[in-house]
Amino acid sequence: MDIQPLVRDLKIKNESKIVMLIADGLGGLPVAPGGPTELEAAKTPNLDALAKQGVQGSMYPIAPGITPGSGPGHLSLFGYDPVKHLIGRGALEATGVGFKLGPKDMAVRCNFCTLDAQGNISDRRAGRIPTEQSAPLAVELRQAKVHGVEVFVEPVKEHRFVVIFRGEGLGGNVADTDPQQTGVPPLAPVARDDASKRTAEAAARFIAEAKKLLADQPKANGLTMRGFSAAPSIDGYEEVYGLRAAAIAVYPMYKGLAQLVGMEVIGAPGTLEEEIDVLERAWADHDFFFVHFKYTDSRGEDGNFEEKVKMIEQFDAIVPRVMALKPTVLIVTGDHSTPARLASHSWHPVPALLVADTCRPDGLTAFGEHHALRGGLGHFPGVYLMPLALAHAERLAKFGA
Amino acid sequence: MDIQPLVRDLKIKNESKIVMLIADGLGGLPVAPGGPTELEAAKTPNLDALAKQGVQGSMYPIAPGITPGSGPGHLSLFGYDPVKHLIGRGALEATGVGFKLGPKDMAVRCNFCTLDAQGNISDRRAGRIPTEQSAPLAVELRQAKVHGVEVFVEPVKEHRFVVIFRGEGLGGNVADTDPQQTGVPPLAPVARDDASKRTAEAAARFIAEAKKLLADQPKANGLTMRGFSAAPSIDGYEEVYGLRAAAIAVYPMYKGLAQLVGMEVIGAPGTLEEEIDVLERAWADHDFFFVHFKYTDSRGEDGNFEEKVKMIEQFDAIVPRVMALKPTVLIVTGDHSTPARLASHSWHPVPALLVADTCRPDGLTAFGEHHALRGGLGHFPGVYLMPLALAHAERLAKFGA
Repeated sequence: MDIQPLVRDLKIKNESKIVMLIADGLGGLPVAPGGPTELEAAKTPNLDALAKQGVQGSMYPIAPGITPGSGPGHLSLFGYDPVKHLIGRGALEATGVGFKLGPKDMAVRCNFCTLDAQGNISDRRAGRIPTEQSAPLAVELRQAKVHGVEVFVEPVKEHRFVVIFRGEGLGGNVADTDPQQTGVPPLAPVARDDASKRTAEAAARFIAEAKKLLADQPKANGLTMRGFSAAPSIDGYEEVYGLRAAAIAVYPMYKGLAQLVGMEVIGAPGTLEEEIDVLERAWADHDFFFVHFKYTDSRGEDGNFEEKVKMIEQFDAIVPRVMALKPTVLIVTGDHSTPARLASHSWHPVPALLVADTCRPDGLTAFGEHHALRGGLGHFPGVYLMPLALAHAERLAKFGA
Repeated sequence: MDIQPLVRDLKIKNESKIVMLIADGLGGLPVAPGGPTELEAAKTPNLDALAKQGVQGSMYPIAPGITPGSGPGHLSLFGYDPVKHLIGRGALEATGVGFKLGPKDMAVRCNFCTLDAQGNISDRRAGRIPTEQSAPLAVELRQAKVHGVEVFVEPVKEHRFVVIFRGEGLGGNVADTDPQQTGVPPLAPVARDDASKRTAEAAARFIAEAKKLLADQPKANGLTMRGFSAAPSIDGYEEVYGLRAAAIAVYPMYKGLAQLVGMEVIGAPGTLEEEIDVLERAWADHDFFFVHFKYTDSRGEDGNFEEKVKMIEQFDAIVPRVMALKPTVLIVTGDHSTPARLASHSWHPVPALLVADTCRPDGLTAFGEHHALRGGLGHFPGVYLMPLALAHAERLAKFGA
């Protein structure tokens, strides 16, 4: 059930402050039967103290069994149904490198590929060309001009880059040019409706220009395109929740996602400590703070249980500084699980903790996956976290008389 | 939230094997306050051992408070929203007697009734005529020919039988002929749209022929029709989940339901032991196995607590044979509760157990209603069972980048 429309109707403003502290990929798995998860193995005296005051729950980001990517995982935390508000691949990639998509922009994710003498693809990823070589090539492609349309080219990583076409009447319903196989040429960009014809034409023109610029490259002499997409049209935090929201993150992807929902990205922190510095300095200026910590996910993706444990302990260590600001509501959770044992995102639920003067404590004594199963928030989907935060901040009026 | 469309998009194939072991009507109630349920009273050392490795939840088949029939209960286990995919009464009855409905078939559930000299119904169920008498009569009705349409008549039980019309252009929007009262004649079969006119005509012709054949019967000299319906058009397991699914069951109803979702019904077992023989022999040929055990429900329906306990113990005894096959994911649950104390299906949730290397064990030590309340799967609707099974078999890709 999407309760955002209801929440939107019921929102009220007050002086409360809400902090959402996200440890990316927080949830985990035991490495041996009967053992602890990463969070349970970590020494987290500060989070455990909060568990005694607060209320926990076992949160599934999207639905049971669904493993979220970063986009859907965060949209859900932000209270937006991620199935309804799907972010296209191009838009997500542009967002991920910190490109702020405007209303006239159409983004598309591109791969460098290798073409043989006949123009057929011999390697769909240009031999996984390293970023040091591909990034300058992507920058070079900025020379490829398309009449009547502004073109931006941004390097991503290895064989990946992103192209943004800016202009009037650029629809996004254009077929991918990646044939998903080798031995055949890239497909032409084909518009699947009239509104997307200009986009397809611009793409075809860009590809022709790019091929000239890449002609002498040994590996990256061609390109394919996937996921033409505009920025999703999403009403932001101010409009939906009445919150002046700020995002504090190190990585562009999370800054971009926060921007998509109308948060102001503040500071340029490089570490978690610096993120909290930014939080402290901006405390008076916003009602809501999204603070993103990346490295729990990174070490989980690496399959490194011990290092993920250490990252969780680092995360725990900054909690007193956040609490010293006396937030009305503090939420601590992750956007999904990234168990070191699987070395990838997973579908397992994530423990979520909410601390507020108005909460009904559930008597739990520590923060972790097993405790969360018996918590006062029950087993709930991620989209309910924002309504819970607003409620505990007394920012939601009574529904009905 | 119907996540089947999402699951369908995310499915991937691998070599994993999933077994869904269903004890029909598994959930129960204590007979005395503070007493155990049937499952809790049963000695289930094998299931309890699995509970220690796996993760449990308290599953409500449809929604809290809703008591499912066999059709909706199983559709839900199979991951299909049973409110969306309603199986008509005629189709369910045909399926229940093992009649495989084809695309040109229109099934209708019929009752023998008693007509008085004026042609008015004096008994809507022909004095609940016993099956020994009604079944040969149903077979006799096969002589009733309808020009241009093939007709099949299948006995069911007591006053019930099913008629299947096979032909081109047979719509299913035909009103019931059962007036739901006595002292009036059966209604004529009336088409409620143009596409159903041929069906209504065929039904009228069949009724006229049948009345001639039944004219001399003391009780069953008439018939009424209800629930004209085609086989529901449901995309099957291969299409939806990418699974080559097999169904192993003793009773026709469950074989029929499995067939409706594209499972291949294998073997002709007569006992649970024989069902596991079939499972062992077919292990290499399928990715998914639905194994159905009927007698937990039957003894529940009888109101016999002790016998239901024994059936659960028989069910527990075959678990080691299943585990010896090393399924990637094993699910053990029921399609609904059938508490002996109520001697009928009920709305109470059913304990559900999932065992897989990739699961996050919840620390429970036995399988049962009270343990399940505190399980890692939480309290969840039956339709989430298949997504969870696929996720734990690593058959679902990440949603979004």
